[in-house]
Amino acid sequence: MQNPSGGLVAALDIGGTKIAGALVDGSGRLLVRARRATPAREDAATVLDAVAGVVGELTAAAEWARVRAVGIGSAGPVDAAAGTVSPVNVPGWREFPLVAEAGRLTGGLPVVLVGDGVAMAAAEHWRGAARGRADALCMVVSTGVGGGLVLGGRLHTGPTGNAGHIGHISVDLDGEPCACGGRGCVERIASGPHISRRALEGGWRPGPDGDTGAAAVAAAARAGDRAALAAFARAGQALAAGIAATATLVEIEVAVIGGGVAGAGEVLLGPLRERLRDYAALSFAAGVEVVPARLGPDAGLVGAAAAAAQRLGLWEWAPDR
Amino acid sequence: MQNPSGGLVAALDIGGTKIAGALVDGSGRLLVRARRATPAREDAATVLDAVAGVVGELTAAAEWARVRAVGIGSAGPVDAAAGTVSPVNVPGWREFPLVAEAGRLTGGLPVVLVGDGVAMAAAEHWRGAARGRADALCMVVSTGVGGGLVLGGRLHTGPTGNAGHIGHISVDLDGEPCACGGRGCVERIASGPHISRRALEGGWRPGPDGDTGAAAVAAAARAGDRAALAAFARAGQALAAGIAATATLVEIEVAVIGGGVAGAGEVLLGPLRERLRDYAALSFAAGVEVVPARLGPDAGLVGAAAAAAQRLGLWEWAPDR
Repeated sequence: MQNPSGGLVAALDIGGTKIAGALVDGSGRLLVRARRATPAREDAATVLDAVAGVVGELTAAAEWARVRAVGIGSAGPVDAAAGTVSPVNVPGWREFPLVAEAGRLTGGLPVVLVGDGVAMAAAEHWRGAARGRADALCMVVSTGVGGGLVLGGRLHTGPTGNAGHIGHISVDLDGEPCACGGRGCVERIASGPHISRRALEGGWRPGPDGDTGAAAVAAAARAGDRAALAAFARAGQALAAGIAATATLVEIEVAVIGGGVAGAGEVLLGPLRERLRDYAALSFAAGVEVVPARLGPDAGLVGAAAAAAQRLGLWEWAPDR
Repeated sequence: MQNPSGGLVAALDIGGTKIAGALVDGSGRLLVRARRATPAREDAATVLDAVAGVVGELTAAAEWARVRAVGIGSAGPVDAAAGTVSPVNVPGWREFPLVAEAGRLTGGLPVVLVGDGVAMAAAEHWRGAARGRADALCMVVSTGVGGGLVLGGRLHTGPTGNAGHIGHISVDLDGEPCACGGRGCVERIASGPHISRRALEGGWRPGPDGDTGAAAVAAAARAGDRAALAAFARAGQALAAGIAATATLVEIEVAVIGGGVAGAGEVLLGPLRERLRDYAALSFAAGVEVVPARLGPDAGLVGAAAAAAQRLGLWEWAPDR
């Protein structure tokens, strides 16, 4: 993907704790950055004010004159068809018309909205671990479990921008109720808080600092704690079933895993790869690889820009194959 | 999709019990038909002889001069990239080069190979219950459970032609081993033989004719037999979890269900629709409809022709939207 015109995309990454923005060029560099804490418990107008603050910093930059489009990756659910977002952790925004507001704040530039999992997938496909892969699942395993899909060399957003929601497929049809309203979802087993819960229920006890986070459980697992190991093994099993289901349904060659819980490394990826053999049994699914993500916290911004560029045909977009 | 040129596709439907062929026109009509029993326990050459017999009847027809391509839907697994098939129920064919052989038998016409589930989806999208739908899952619930996907208005085959294999995603990660090598697969719960098994285990007893098929279980369920009702309820639950997973992963607006077991009607579809609300909880997935298939046993032939026409750009292919 070259950028002969020098055009930029203004990217926004909307989450429950922060609102980040950047001007992104055709090689994926972030030229100008801005950031606000998300006033997640405030009303709709106050949250929008924070977005306006981020956009205001971007429009004040000299590079703004080269901006051709706005790309937004938002915590979900989103509705790209309607141009609205309803982030679970921002209750003041329900079917909030973010696309229209972003257009207004940026003088009428075209705006492309996708879910944050889709944005992460776009980033890993453009500049990360899924580069050159025609068919990939990219996931974030963190406080929640999210994801996005690349199919046939292109981002698969779905009509509403929510495709790839692997955290909320059921892999345990009689399993425990999930916050989404479902039952036995991948997230209900493999998210950081659920790994911690399972470890504690199994008898793991935190150290003197009282830290019960997934990283502390991972440290205990590396030290041989049985309950901690069992909690990560169960998470790996659920992720394996979900990745295998994806490979069986749409054919993927690679699953890219990022997010804080993935930072546990082999404690998670070891059992995941082992169990994947149990669930990805059919020949065309059995070869799916599992690799760590390459991009860090900027993936949301890079991916929001990539999604907009691909949708709008900027930067002579063509996936590197 | 119009057919101004009058071109035809020679379609082949390769299954474990029969090999069917037809010449298909641009409106989905079958102009000439041929059929052989599959010599499923014989060697590779004998099975190929049966295919050659079917093709020979088609090439002998006056309409053969108008044939532009060959479309094949085969029992899986298939490998469209390699041009080979390895149907589970035809052990003599393992990585059998069916595409090359079909090209040879037809004088070098272009050959498009897809799995039988993909072919069924192509047929329902072209002429059946998924017509005009941009995003659909089409499934067959019978001795096995298969399927295919339409995404963004086009057939999603995957690189090897196997995408849409919903029967072999796990919805019960601790569940019983499946013949595919996996565990807790949809097919392991919802196929006709497994519905019968569960009903018998639950205390259902067949009538004087000893018929233990799924249709007999369905009749018992309609008459109020508890074990028969429970077996169909469990099948509906597994299908609901699988359909919800598909809607959550790729966004679909409709699930089309055909095949012999689907002939049970509301005994299956009632619990399926009820449980779908439990698993398709996220807003973008919650609206997925479940409808019966419209095409009957000819779906495999119609769909093989449609898949070839779409891939090769015959008949000025454009999905009816």
